Amino acid sequence: MYDLAEQKDVPNPMEQRSQQMELIKKRMSRVKHKIAVISGKGGVGKSLVTVNLATALAVNDKDRKVAILDADLTGPCVPKMMGLKGQRLDVGPVGIAPVKGPEGVGVVSMDFLLPTDDSPVIWRGPLKMGAIRQFLGEVAWGPLDYLLVDLPPGTGDESLSILQLLPEMDGVIIVTIPSEVSQAVVKKAVTFARKMEVPVFGVIENMAGLVCPHCGETINVFSEGGGARVAEEMGVELLGSIPIDPRVSTDSDEGTPFILRHPDSPAAKSFMGLVEKIENKVKNK
Amino acid sequence: MYDLAEQKDVPNPMEQRSQQMELIKKRMSRVKHKIAVISGKGGVGKSLVTVNLATALAVNDKDRKVAILDADLTGPCVPKMMGLKGQRLDVGPVGIAPVKGPEGVGVVSMDFLLPTDDSPVIWRGPLKMGAIRQFLGEVAWGPLDYLLVDLPPGTGDESLSILQLLPEMDGVIIVTIPSEVSQAVVKKAVTFARKMEVPVFGVIENMAGLVCPHCGETINVFSEGGGARVAEEMGVELLGSIPIDPRVSTDSDEGTPFILRHPDSPAAKSFMGLVEKIENKVKNK
Repeated sequence: MYDLAEQKDVPNPMEQRSQQMELIKKRMSRVKHKIAVISGKGGVGKSLVTVNLATALAVNDKDRKVAILDADLTGPCVPKMMGLKGQRLDVGPVGIAPVKGPEGVGVVSMDFLLPTDDSPVIWRGPLKMGAIRQFLGEVAWGPLDYLLVDLPPGTGDESLSILQLLPEMDGVIIVTIPSEVSQAVVKKAVTFARKMEVPVFGVIENMAGLVCPHCGETINVFSEGGGARVAEEMGVELLGSIPIDPRVSTDSDEGTPFILRHPDSPAAKSFMGLVEKIENKVKNK
Repeated sequence: MYDLAEQKDVPNPMEQRSQQMELIKKRMSRVKHKIAVISGKGGVGKSLVTVNLATALAVNDKDRKVAILDADLTGPCVPKMMGLKGQRLDVGPVGIAPVKGPEGVGVVSMDFLLPTDDSPVIWRGPLKMGAIRQFLGEVAWGPLDYLLVDLPPGTGDESLSILQLLPEMDGVIIVTIPSEVSQAVVKKAVTFARKMEVPVFGVIENMAGLVCPHCGETINVFSEGGGARVAEEMGVELLGSIPIDPRVSTDSDEGTPFILRHPDSPAAKSFMGLVEKIENKVKNK
């Protein structure tokens, strides 16, 4: 006979959810600053910015504890860009331990859980959110100075749900490229952040003018000045422009943040300038 | 008093859904060939390929009827790239009429329904799928030779649900860029298409080597040869490589498919070559 009494120790789904939310709250209370990196569309360098920003924050102050949550569940790129492919998340007594990347930056990504590179995560929305909740609540993030969240591209329900789980975000950074086609989607991202009542730190324009390594002339591969235009139109700050540099792509492929591998490149110098602006914004919060 | 009898003419949600599915089936039975364009990650030129492929198919045979469903609900770019920004969908007695673009290509996009450029579509999954079902079932597509579907980036549940609504897809085209970071996600896209039992027409490598307009030397902005490598590894065809050309970005910003504006450019020539391959694949289906 089915005995109800035996079920009394198994929490029901509602209880389980509220326990999980408590756990997230507890874990997140030990994180001083939370910054989300978003983009209206994919492929503009959102993960590149997250990886290099996290590394720069760690480089600028060796005592800082920095971690990345790669919340892009269907195309997680952070591990590859940090040379962490093939690593696995360890489960210890206090929770899941983030994988340590360059400069001690901790990384949690769906990529660490996938059996092979070919495996797509074809999950329905609710399952994805379950994974994000687990990442936030069951990872032993420890005390952190900065947690950067690499959100999925776009302003869809995934980004929405993740921001709802992290209500005390310091701010969001919006990554774009100079072309006009990208500008329309940046506007959506700004409106999205405002609707969510998250402060917008500003826009980073990636893939600005390329300096030809052969002749030194500038080539505006993806048009010009779109970042400044959209920042002005939307009343947000242009944090900086990062020029295209083939070495940036190679560094990502080889798993090293370009600010470490090519610190003297114009791309790295622009990048370190905008990191300073972000540090000031966090300080003045 | 609440009168149940009064409700008898209102179909219940299940009936409504099955009526809608019938409508989709009927509309789609008049479409000869359906091709989906996907990418493992965003920003690789999926919409650019869709727009130029549709235009090329219409150019190559003036009697062909071609249309695009821009199924990227959160960052719809197709209207901007075809010079159709600000247009609206008209509703007539037979259904919603697609907006006509260059070469008579019909376009249906969420962008035509948004009040302003700034408006993000922050919809939950089920609402999005409702919109896609409406687009497929309630648009008067008419008899079509080709319907191209620009899927959302990634291999998430949105792409999954849309492919499930269109079971008799001729094939999918996977768009990528040469960098290694992109290759991992291409593999996911191939596996995804295979799991969905949709034939993979092949891979298009976008943003291959840039020829410096000043000195004529080639710059591999996003690494080199990734498309060929991933095609070989996954046992799919490399349909072609499209070099980076700043004019491609400008043409998109100005709303003209680059194969029309710059037909003599190396990018357009490569593109027309791969269109021929796709036409042959459809013919030999």
